[in-house]
Formats: sequence, C-alpha cells, structure tokens
Amino acid sequence: MKKPTWVIDKERDKRAAAAETVWLFGLHAVRDALENPARERLRLVVTRNAADRLAPAIATAGMEPEIADPRKFPAPLDPGSVHQGAALEVRPLNWGDWQSLCARDDGTAATIVLLDRVTDPHNVGAILRSAEVFGARAVLAPARHSAPESGALAKTASGALERMPYLRVQNLGDTLETLNKMAYLTIGLDGLAEREIGAVAARDARANMALVLGAEGPGLRERTKDLCAVMARVPFQRDFGSLNVSNAAAVALYALSQRTG
Amino acid sequence: MKKPTWVIDKERDKRAAAAETVWLFGLHAVRDALENPARERLRLVVTRNAADRLAPAIATAGMEPEIADPRKFPAPLDPGSVHQGAALEVRPLNWGDWQSLCARDDGTAATIVLLDRVTDPHNVGAILRSAEVFGARAVLAPARHSAPESGALAKTASGALERMPYLRVQNLGDTLETLNKMAYLTIGLDGLAEREIGAVAARDARANMALVLGAEGPGLRERTKDLCAVMARVPFQRDFGSLNVSNAAAVALYALSQRTG
Repeated sequence: MKKPTWVIDKERDKRAAAAETVWLFGLHAVRDALENPARERLRLVVTRNAADRLAPAIATAGMEPEIADPRKFPAPLDPGSVHQGAALEVRPLNWGDWQSLCARDDGTAATIVLLDRVTDPHNVGAILRSAEVFGARAVLAPARHSAPESGALAKTASGALERMPYLRVQNLGDTLETLNKMAYLTIGLDGLAEREIGAVAARDARANMALVLGAEGPGLRERTKDLCAVMARVPFQRDFGSLNVSNAAAVALYALSQRTG
Repeated sequence: MKKPTWVIDKERDKRAAAAETVWLFGLHAVRDALENPARERLRLVVTRNAADRLAPAIATAGMEPEIADPRKFPAPLDPGSVHQGAALEVRPLNWGDWQSLCARDDGTAATIVLLDRVTDPHNVGAILRSAEVFGARAVLAPARHSAPESGALAKTASGALERMPYLRVQNLGDTLETLNKMAYLTIGLDGLAEREIGAVAARDARANMALVLGAEGPGLRERTKDLCAVMARVPFQRDFGSLNVSNAAAVALYALSQRTG
C-alpha cells in the first residue's frame, strides 16, 4: 500500500530535522557547547593552539578533536567568521515543549520573551544574553522569519545559547492567545505606546509576563499588537532617535526584573 | 631661522587632522549626514536608485552626487560593508570643547558617558543611540584605544552620530578628575560592585552624573576605578552570563534617566 502524502511529508520533515546540524565557532561558544551535557556534538575542528586553550572542556566532553592547520581551516564556515581556531558541529538543542516550560510554577513571577520576526542573529544573540542575565525563562520565536540557531547567533550570545531556552513556535499569534489563557500578561513593546514599561511592570508585580518585541523598522505586526493585553514603551527623553532592538529588550527586561523589588 | 621640532610636530598633527576624512555608508547614515548642517561633506557616491531615495536630502545638502554603477561601486569601503548604494566622504564633526559642553547649565541634571577603551565600533554606535534616546549630553572616549568615528560606527549609530556629541579626550583619568571637581557624580559600572545603579541614581537624583563603562572582558582599568566616586552594577538574577557592553550601557542610562522621576 502506498503511503499517503501527509505521512511522506511528515517523515521527510522528521528526517530533515534530524539531519540539521549547526557549526558553532569561536573559543567562548565552542567551550560552552563542549561543557553543556545536553548538547549533541558531532565534529570538533581546532588548531593546536585552540586545542590547548580548550583542553579542560574537550576532556569534559570526551571528544577526539581534529587538529587543523590555521591557514587551511577545514570547517565549513561563512567567510569572515572569526573562529579563533575552534569550530564544533552540533545539533540544535531540544528544550522540549514551550507550554510546559512556561506553565511551571517555581513560586516566582515568570518572564518570557517573544520575538516577532527578529531576523538578525546578532540581535537575537544579544537578547539571549540579556534574557539570561535578567532571569527570563524562555525566548520564543516563530519557526519562520526569525534567526535560526547558528554560529553567528551563538557567538553573539556568548554562551547564553547553551543555557537560555530558545524555542521556535509554529505561529506567534496562537502562542500569544495561549499565553493570555495561561494568565501571562502579554506586553507588546512599541515606541508610540502611551504607558511606560516600568509602570506596567510595577502595577502587576506578581504576574507572569511575556514581553513581545518586533524587528527594528517594521516593529510589531498588527495581529501581534491586537493579541497583546497591553502595549508599553521604553520612556525616552529625545524626540528623535531610537534604541537598537537588543538594547530595547535589555531595558525592558531590566524594568520587568525590578518589579518584585 | 629653523623652526623648533615641537612646532614642526604640531603643524604636522594639525595638517593630519585636517586631512582626516571618513567614508560614511548606508542609506540611513548618509541621509542623516546630508541633513546635518554641521557636517563638512566632500564627496557623495550613489547608485541611481539610492540617488532617487535620497533626493530630498541631497537637495538639502546642495551636493552634486557622483552616480555609480552598483556592480562597480567606486567608494573605498571595507569589503562586506552594506552600503546600499550610498557612500559619503566627510570630515569628523567638531563638537568643540568637552568641558564647556559638560559645564553648561540648562536647569536639568546632566548625564554623560565615558568609555574606557571600548574599541568595537558596533558597540560604540549602539551606545551613541542609547545615549541620545536617554538624553545624555555627550559621550567621551580617550583619543587612543577607542573606536574612531567611522562608517561602521555611523551605520550602527543609525543617525545618532550626527546628533550625539562624541568627543575624544587625551587622558580619561584626567577627565575623570576634572569631572569630579565639576561636581559630576562619577559612576563606574562593574558587575562586582555592591550597589545597584538604580539605587545610586535615586540617592542623588538632582546631581550631574558621569557613567563610566569599560570594554567587555577587561572591564574598567584600575586607575579608572580609583577615580570614580562610586561603583555600581546592573542587578542580575542569574549567577552566570553577562550583558553585552551596549546593553549594559542602555540599562544604566535608562536607570539614570529615571532618577528625576
């Protein structure tokens, strides 16, 4: 009997996902991935010098490195990648299901971040760092139109990619609807909003909060705004000028982190 | 009579400074420089498409653009510069004397930023944006060991380079001593400091403040720390992880901007 098309499609997607690998590069990103027990590692390419510097992490991971000539570095990286003599092929991390992660009750007010089509890997990397520092629980982004887990993202995240759950969802609007039902206060960040992020955070200090950020320029999509319970802005003192999206995220996450005093 | 060596040196430095030019690139950076009356402009190279998009700004500046073939773009930019068909040769802006700028009394508490060897142009560009948004008066950096005004910096600054005074000082330590005498509260940002930036800002809400930031990794130099009146940190909730320097700057500037309520 012939398999139905949807089964064939599903199997193909599954095979594609299993085959998907990412090349991390740079000493910091490679070290943190070597030290992360949850990370599935495939191939480690290092110069002699990088092997020395990463020796403890390589021992922890129990990997056999391929020693490479720095002038003919064989890892398939984009030209211009500052690899510092270290590259590691890995599979994307599996953080499990976002709803369980967001529903977990550990007695504190949870904060999560949603990214609406933020495609620049450097911005997403910096946002993962800030999310980690300010104690967010997860960063969610739609499967399409956002930065995938990549070497450039990992390098900017400076280790945070190994520790900060970064999950992809099928549809951001559906995710917002679910979060609203889960009693998360969904807060869309928009420079033109009337209310200030600090005031919004202080008013419901004990609530779980989801901070929703759009890309620079287009900002949040209309449907995204419609589904946010409240819109807020980072207060500014000048009439022109705007924050870079990762800076806006850092300030907003700081403001939310201050809500419990 | 032969000129003394120091006169020859001084004249040479003066000629070198006058000869120094910078190539700005990218539609946003070029547009803002064309619209800035204080900007001395030398050469504008644009594709036909970019000329159309920049037409009002080119008219404002009264420049005659050189129309270039996008496949053979003749401006001397670094490879990989995303110029979007627009490049403008300019002289660095002259913001005058930093002490007059910082001494000016406009009835509000002033905030300035000092950078201790922050060399990455993308970080400095993002810091200029945040400094503008949060109403800082100037960003000061030592003449050596910091990012010069450049095309990459201007592009990240996304227009803020034209509006936010970015001045170079001979010696950061001397500048801190002068600021202390001028009754600026000099605040060194350090992840290990005991006091939190928000509390430091709130305690002396009406004081002029100078926020001092070091590069990622090395942080502030010992002499810089010694000369700061107080050290403060951005509060964090996780034991590991750290903020990118431009994100730390954004959060600290936000905290200072909140001090007047």
